[in-house]
Amino acid sequence: MMKEVRVGIAGLGVVGTGVVELLVNNNDRLRRAGAALRLVGVSARDRGKDRGVSLDGVCWFDSPEELAGSDDIDVFVELMGGASGPAYEAVQTALRQGKHVVTANKAMLAEHGAGLAAMAEHKGSSLLYEAAVAGGIPVIRGVREGASACRVDRLVGLLNGTCNYMLTKMTSSGWGYDEALREAQSLGYAEADPSFDVGGADAAQKLAILSTIAFDAGIRYGSFPVEGIEKVTAEDIAGASKLGFRIKLLAVAQRSEDGCELRVHPALVKEDHPVAKADGADNFVIVETDPLGRLTFSGPGAGKGPTAAAVVADLVALSRGVSGPVYNALSTDLQEATLVSPDKKASRFYLRVGLKDVPGAIAGISETLAQKSISIDSLIQPSVSASGEGRPDAMVMLVTHETTMAEIRAAADEIRQKAFALGAPSIIRIEDFD
Amino acid sequence: MMKEVRVGIAGLGVVGTGVVELLVNNNDRLRRAGAALRLVGVSARDRGKDRGVSLDGVCWFDSPEELAGSDDIDVFVELMGGASGPAYEAVQTALRQGKHVVTANKAMLAEHGAGLAAMAEHKGSSLLYEAAVAGGIPVIRGVREGASACRVDRLVGLLNGTCNYMLTKMTSSGWGYDEALREAQSLGYAEADPSFDVGGADAAQKLAILSTIAFDAGIRYGSFPVEGIEKVTAEDIAGASKLGFRIKLLAVAQRSEDGCELRVHPALVKEDHPVAKADGADNFVIVETDPLGRLTFSGPGAGKGPTAAAVVADLVALSRGVSGPVYNALSTDLQEATLVSPDKKASRFYLRVGLKDVPGAIAGISETLAQKSISIDSLIQPSVSASGEGRPDAMVMLVTHETTMAEIRAAADEIRQKAFALGAPSIIRIEDFD
Repeated sequence: MMKEVRVGIAGLGVVGTGVVELLVNNNDRLRRAGAALRLVGVSARDRGKDRGVSLDGVCWFDSPEELAGSDDIDVFVELMGGASGPAYEAVQTALRQGKHVVTANKAMLAEHGAGLAAMAEHKGSSLLYEAAVAGGIPVIRGVREGASACRVDRLVGLLNGTCNYMLTKMTSSGWGYDEALREAQSLGYAEADPSFDVGGADAAQKLAILSTIAFDAGIRYGSFPVEGIEKVTAEDIAGASKLGFRIKLLAVAQRSEDGCELRVHPALVKEDHPVAKADGADNFVIVETDPLGRLTFSGPGAGKGPTAAAVVADLVALSRGVSGPVYNALSTDLQEATLVSPDKKASRFYLRVGLKDVPGAIAGISETLAQKSISIDSLIQPSVSASGEGRPDAMVMLVTHETTMAEIRAAADEIRQKAFALGAPSIIRIEDFD
Repeated sequence: MMKEVRVGIAGLGVVGTGVVELLVNNNDRLRRAGAALRLVGVSARDRGKDRGVSLDGVCWFDSPEELAGSDDIDVFVELMGGASGPAYEAVQTALRQGKHVVTANKAMLAEHGAGLAAMAEHKGSSLLYEAAVAGGIPVIRGVREGASACRVDRLVGLLNGTCNYMLTKMTSSGWGYDEALREAQSLGYAEADPSFDVGGADAAQKLAILSTIAFDAGIRYGSFPVEGIEKVTAEDIAGASKLGFRIKLLAVAQRSEDGCELRVHPALVKEDHPVAKADGADNFVIVETDPLGRLTFSGPGAGKGPTAAAVVADLVALSRGVSGPVYNALSTDLQEATLVSPDKKASRFYLRVGLKDVPGAIAGISETLAQKSISIDSLIQPSVSASGEGRPDAMVMLVTHETTMAEIRAAADEIRQKAFALGAPSIIRIEDFD
């Protein structure tokens, strides 16, 4: 039952080193798991660097390409990163030769996944990527295998730990965005250049991969709207709380009659919903299926141990003899995704309007909304706080009844031009769960 | 890549009928999933019964044994239930002939799982059972595959939806046990004879299966202590709430230096912990692993759709070509479980003492506890409520600091004999998370 799998790893950063450690330290567990994994080759930028792991008896390759093409490996583990470039080239080389590939590279999959799947399926080899989405949480398995018999109707995820950590701190400590970002950086949750995380790209890449599995459709990063948390202020967080909501960066994929609707953006979620309560740096994924019902998965979405464990779990699966399509359908059965713009989707919205000291503001706002047939569900006008630089002195926050993004944007545009308005109103969608 | 799998189903109750419906109605999804599943034979008690599904062209077998032994099927789907008897006989027949088996039968696996695994592995066939634990939640996959490279340190589950529904209602509505049970029965969450659910056996069987996967040790139902929720009163629920806790029926499996500790019992959980907040009829499982960290899974733990979807997901896996050990280790590598008694485990405890109208009760209780070196963390004496029949007129509820079940039982025994005590104190363990 046990067949030896010869492993080559390209990329010995934090995760790559973690994989090597697991292969060495958890050898007993792996052997019992029915896996005979032998690390035979590695490739990384700096050969001389001390990574704290022994690579005795492991062959060093100067390029990932050479490792990927080596006859000595059965599986190429790609942990270099980057949507295109050397990682993509090396993975293609491995697949072309009928080798299995295990990768944690969400950027590459979100861009080239369907093509790589076709290559793997053509040769009958496996392309596994549990570590690419939500770190150690087995959500790829959960959807691809656990819900394989089901129709997936909606995915809602907190897929970026950095953003969820920052929003949690902003909520619990009343911090502003900058303060939360500095803390996230000091704890290693955010990079020096945090834009990939806070701008929503990371969550969007993961969503593209998950929805390709969920909807049997090739969905690429870049094909749907993505908005980050950079504009969420301490006032928004506080106002949302007063109105009974939490602000989360949501990644949403929803099946509709006309196609699939995908979006990544900050959203207000009712404070008593599990999504609102999912605090901290963990990831959290809800999958609504028929007839399986609503599944939730949560756990560490990043980090050395969780990500390495997910990579090694894929290696165990290979050794046990996994097969089947790369997604939940063969790449030849993946359809062209018909993406529906979220602008048309009916939602409730949160609106924050900065005010100059001009009377009649609330009357003016409600009139403008009424003209667009947008009615107000609730409204608060927090007492004026000690104002920081650039902050409006007074503001109104409100929650509308259902309307569309197009309508609320048009209304906000009109409000911005009123005498009482200070700057453009900010708009955040409210995500309702039945 | 697609190989046709010929399916025989024994047992056409609610779940069996759900499986037939899925095979027919979701044919398109299943084909895309890479699964070619053909229902060729069924066996059930009553041939004439109208089940609302067409069985045209499907062969009827008068006994599950005959179906299991038929050369016309590749996989025997056992949905009859029962730890031993016809289901067990038929599954053995199928495995002896090298057929794959898919089952939702937790009682059989919790009793005979290791032996059946050995039979399957001997012939190189698969024994799959996702539906046997937590219904549609892919927690078997999550542990067996997602955490295959990890050491599992602790499992904590709300594995019985009936109990969780009842405890939730007792908490939210102030209901007593009987009222909650009647409601659960009227909604179909509890059987006419509810003892299998409310007595903890159902949760314990699931725990036995999950911990066999988690600990690489053959763990059987009946080898660890199980206590149900029958003695939990409305007063306990209210007292726990006042003390900052919720009462849940927990299934716990914990690795320790001396072996594994398993137990199923009502427990107090701090009200802000996710386990405390997991309300309703859903199941909820926490898996603490190294180095993957803490994973949680939740979703519908029972019901036609979820259970049938889990069965069909296993059929899809077979069609895709799953293999590997039945648990997370080959049955030949499963160790004898060294079970540690929970009585030795240090915990905090909740104690409820019914009082006669005798002064000095609190002093008496604290003295008795102090003599056993048990100190009190917090104590409440709720105002006397309109007493129902048999209810004590007054009572004290308290939370201790850490001690053992043996110590707290001895103290409760002494308290019971005091002049102020009305009946035996009730004891509930407090489950703390780091």
